[in-house]
Amino acid sequence: MPDFKYYTPTRVIFGKNTEDRTAELIREYGGKKILIHYGGGSVVRSGLLEKVTNILSEAGISYVTLGGAVPNPRLGLVYEGIDLCKKEGVDFLLAVGGGSVIDSAKAIGYGVANEGDVWDFYDNKRRPSACLPLGVILTIAATGSEMSDSSVITKEEGLVKRGCNSDLCRAKFAILNPELTMTLPDYQTACGCTDIMMHTMERYFTNGGTMEITDNLAEALLRTVMKNALILADDPKNYDARAEVMWAGSLSHNGLTGFGSDGGDWMTHKLEHEIGGLFDVAHGAGLAAIWGSWARYVYKDCLARFRRFAVNVFGVEETGTDEEIALKGIEACEAFFRSLHMPTNLRELGIDASDSDLETMARKCAAGVGGGKGAAKFLREADMLEIYRASR
Amino acid sequence: MPDFKYYTPTRVIFGKNTEDRTAELIREYGGKKILIHYGGGSVVRSGLLEKVTNILSEAGISYVTLGGAVPNPRLGLVYEGIDLCKKEGVDFLLAVGGGSVIDSAKAIGYGVANEGDVWDFYDNKRRPSACLPLGVILTIAATGSEMSDSSVITKEEGLVKRGCNSDLCRAKFAILNPELTMTLPDYQTACGCTDIMMHTMERYFTNGGTMEITDNLAEALLRTVMKNALILADDPKNYDARAEVMWAGSLSHNGLTGFGSDGGDWMTHKLEHEIGGLFDVAHGAGLAAIWGSWARYVYKDCLARFRRFAVNVFGVEETGTDEEIALKGIEACEAFFRSLHMPTNLRELGIDASDSDLETMARKCAAGVGGGKGAAKFLREADMLEIYRASR
Repeated sequence: MPDFKYYTPTRVIFGKNTEDRTAELIREYGGKKILIHYGGGSVVRSGLLEKVTNILSEAGISYVTLGGAVPNPRLGLVYEGIDLCKKEGVDFLLAVGGGSVIDSAKAIGYGVANEGDVWDFYDNKRRPSACLPLGVILTIAATGSEMSDSSVITKEEGLVKRGCNSDLCRAKFAILNPELTMTLPDYQTACGCTDIMMHTMERYFTNGGTMEITDNLAEALLRTVMKNALILADDPKNYDARAEVMWAGSLSHNGLTGFGSDGGDWMTHKLEHEIGGLFDVAHGAGLAAIWGSWARYVYKDCLARFRRFAVNVFGVEETGTDEEIALKGIEACEAFFRSLHMPTNLRELGIDASDSDLETMARKCAAGVGGGKGAAKFLREADMLEIYRASR
Repeated sequence: MPDFKYYTPTRVIFGKNTEDRTAELIREYGGKKILIHYGGGSVVRSGLLEKVTNILSEAGISYVTLGGAVPNPRLGLVYEGIDLCKKEGVDFLLAVGGGSVIDSAKAIGYGVANEGDVWDFYDNKRRPSACLPLGVILTIAATGSEMSDSSVITKEEGLVKRGCNSDLCRAKFAILNPELTMTLPDYQTACGCTDIMMHTMERYFTNGGTMEITDNLAEALLRTVMKNALILADDPKNYDARAEVMWAGSLSHNGLTGFGSDGGDWMTHKLEHEIGGLFDVAHGAGLAAIWGSWARYVYKDCLARFRRFAVNVFGVEETGTDEEIALKGIEACEAFFRSLHMPTNLRELGIDASDSDLETMARKCAAGVGGGKGAAKFLREADMLEIYRASR
């Protein structure tokens, strides 16, 4: 068992109307001039943005706003945010939205607090030494960025999608009001549930050893998310199911479900990053589209884990060979994704990828992980290309 | 579902020899003059205290030491620690030990950082406004105090045992090396496992509503602790089992297993506090001794939860009435405690309590909770006396 750390300093405020506490929380963390960062029109249409600006105004807290963060958030907007913060003397970031907005805000926070080009931190050239303090009002349960140390940004030039992980960017507080997620389109809800599952599954599939308690917690979390994802597919306004999924999203990426493991595999995410970079698809759908092909390619090299996954998460009967049981688990997971109307290959994702596209993605993916990566099975460029081909 | 918060800022450093990082961590949190607080002779005999003082000396960090914290830690030593810290200009506390040492250190931290009598915070007369920063090197997996917001102190005069809960006292870092728990006597290991279970069970038994994900995580944690407690009963040097129990201890009391509930019942703890105050027994053993009597007294008023506990934690078959199933769960839990050589009544705990003792405990217990308390069933002094009588 390797040594490891656990650090989740984010103060979670969970429940109905908890966004009413925004000003008080910002004040507690010393924020005087705020950048409110958000995405598209949904937080405008829902009235949330107006509610938040009113709360700050009434509290006498000064702010500027920056919208426009998109799924697979762009470096260009990050630069714009950095300039705005410097010009306006912003000392606290408030992300109002989902993972893309939070990740974009984290990048802005790095850019303001460090000299030089912020992309260096994503391109693995330098490590950040500071970050502006960040608060979150979450509107999409999916990425877990509200409690995680990670931020993923896409550079427009070459559509390069890269992540930067550091405790520095962990949010000071995260306001989690399940009601704010109720107006999400069903497709986005399903994408979010898939993403949440994948954050735990990436940590689960490894040959590097794990802890029994972590495995048990991970399996409990996966079963809970699946059950409530199906409830939401029928009843999107179900508060309790929204709450279950929202909390699972935070736990799935805050380190809890990877405690005691070697960090996990993460190749499904890396493979998806290139799909998302080139075709700009919803992250959760991209993960669902590639996971099955990845799993079939690697499961024999991580058989004990895939067998356990099949039995403990999907209730596969323990008859037949280990390989048969493991395969049934993969099939059951794909069937679950389909029940949420998630794609299980690139075609269902709406992508007609050419041979050259696949080669480009494999090349970029391998380059992004320094040639190779994977704890279930170590994958190099040729393996990645095989998986992309199988997912077409 | 009530609104709630989750805040676990403690940086956990887990694994073999992680105490080697003590100086670096203290420096990161700005500690310049340290009080090393510890308990009895075990950390002296094991060489841990010498190791830690050497690490600080080599790093050029100045320190003073204060030993003598006992199970059910005493207010007198807290006062002594406060005086010592003020005299020596201590700015950082390092607790080396188990829950008693950590709780004692937290009380010292309150006393140094606030004016007036520190007992006021335990006697619920005032709230603390600050606490000295605290680091922990854990040597007993039990109370979860290394990640919790709680501290329990016993006032010698009248043997009054009271707790104070506040985020202010949460440890900055907790060094969790499972090897440090390997030399514990079997009895203390079993007491620790019981305490860990009870922290989750106190939160589990409520009529105030819970979350499915929290229930699933709680049940997974309980099953893991039970499995590994039995492994340790046979094989006390099993590193992996020590690690499972150690991490479960932190998770069991950091808020995770109560997220989304109304806080839980906690009457088993309150009833035990009076036993511990009057007879000075090991906390975990006291909990085991009183739990069954409490459970039989309240289960009909919290039947759905006791039924679920029986089925999901102890695998009781779902045949018969709900009451029969619930009772089988209580019996199975008591049988488990006995398998760890834990007592299931006061006599087995080694206490020959008189009628007057029971009346004293019931009176003090009721007074300590403002007349009554309990989420599974609201208990007043007369109920408490009944439970004490049944546990004799």
